Amino acid sequence: MREPTPREVCAFEAGIKLGALFHQFIGTPVSEASKASLEEAIRRAVMNQPYVKRVEVRIRSDVLKRASKNTFGYASLSPEMLEASVWIEYGGATCRGRLAYDVEKRYPLMTLEFE
Amino acid sequence: MREPTPREVCAFEAGIKLGALFHQFIGTPVSEASKASLEEAIRRAVMNQPYVKRVEVRIRSDVLKRASKNTFGYASLSPEMLEASVWIEYGGATCRGRLAYDVEKRYPLMTLEFE
Amino acid sequence: MREPTPREVCAFEAGIKLGALFHQFIGTPVSEASKASLEEAIRRAVMNQPYVKRVEVRIRSDVLKRASKNTFGYASLSPEMLEASVWIEYGGATCRGRLAYDVEKRYPLMTLEFE
Amino acid sequence: MREPTPREVCAFEAGIKLGALFHQFIGTPVSEASKASLEEAIRRAVMNQPYVKRVEVRIRSDVLKRASKNTFGYASLSPEMLEASVWIEYGGATCRGRLAYDVEKRYPLMTLEFE
Repeated sequence: MREPTPREVCAFEAGIKLGALFHQFIGTPVSEASKASLEEAIRRAVMNQPYVKRVEVRIRSDVLKRASKNTFGYASLSPEMLEASVWIEYGGATCRGRLAYDVEKRYPLMTLEFE
Repeated sequence: MREPTPREVCAFEAGIKLGALFHQFIGTPVSEASKASLEEAIRRAVMNQPYVKRVEVRIRSDVLKRASKNTFGYASLSPEMLEASVWIEYGGATCRGRLAYDVEKRYPLMTLEFE
Repeated sequence: MREPTPREVCAFEAGIKLGALFHQFIGTPVSEASKASLEEAIRRAVMNQPYVKRVEVRIRSDVLKRASKNTFGYASLSPEMLEASVWIEYGGATCRGRLAYDVEKRYPLMTLEFE
Repeated sequence: MREPTPREVCAFEAGIKLGALFHQFIGTPVSEASKASLEEAIRRAVMNQPYVKRVEVRIRSDVLKRASKNTFGYASLSPEMLEASVWIEYGGATCRGRLAYDVEKRYPLMTLEFE
């Protein structure tokens, strides 16, 4: 067993943030009217967490509109709607974790990049 | 302002349990292999709550199978998949709250019945 | 079995909203800096739901401050922190569901009132 | 920008799983009676996710007992109660992510180890 490098910890921390935001907020009632406040609350919630430099969150209007075509005019936040990027800085390493729905894989894919 | 009747409190408590179970568990990773354990955990979690006499939970295999046809072979628990009934007893009143996805309304509908 | 009255459905709907907001948002990373945005997002999320006339949400600063005295300066939203009121109108009936932590019962108590 | 190494992706995936399980299940009603079913459901939920080799989940009975000393005899799953380990294998690399409440830091700490 050896200590993880700063880059490995950076990647780990990026993963934590994406797993957290997905599972905390999926299911939230959302509409065009409330979308901006939810994006902002998710962004600020994640900004609280350790080693976070920057967060971007986007709820896709096209998917939201389709999902809201029901009797009550809103939807539950779904994996298809949610996009996010989290930038982490740890011990000199910087990385970015991204969440976006992958249409071919039919899956909310999380990916890692180093700068 | 007047005190609610036992029947009104019974209805209120039934609503709490359905709102709780929906928003606690939507988003959980689920597959045919893990479905039974999740149903059981939801059932037992709700049984802890006040005035609950009985709980039934069902994750629909047909919807789960369709949703799991992706690269990784599982899905996030979605509103279309989850069915539940909660029986509440309060002050001599008994009621049942039900959750089931309504295809026409395109909505996870919660309804109330008294016995 | 008989149909529920408008007052009973009103109570049921109030319960749904309180159960939903508690279980959707408990666990969210929160600090003094992000508190207002989370309160607003919860409020607007619940406003989407059927029969909701008004919502008030408050995250208690005193509890949040104590819980944030840790290495990273923020907390997970806990049952002790969260207060909310939801006003429901259904079929001519109006009611209010309230959530507040009850110190004696050591429990996040939800209560129902009719106007 | 360069491609992450297998070890970095392994760390990222471990982080995702810990962030996910914490934020999905915090808030769940839990008691001594339901504890085992919730541990099992969390374990099996996480086993669905990509690259997971093994999962251990423990809800601490000592913390649960203290938190359940209230009017209704159960508690909401809290950060102080939840311990988990997730083993990930990716591209030949193997790592372990751990979650345990750190009493000194007053924080549910997530840590990374390579084997």
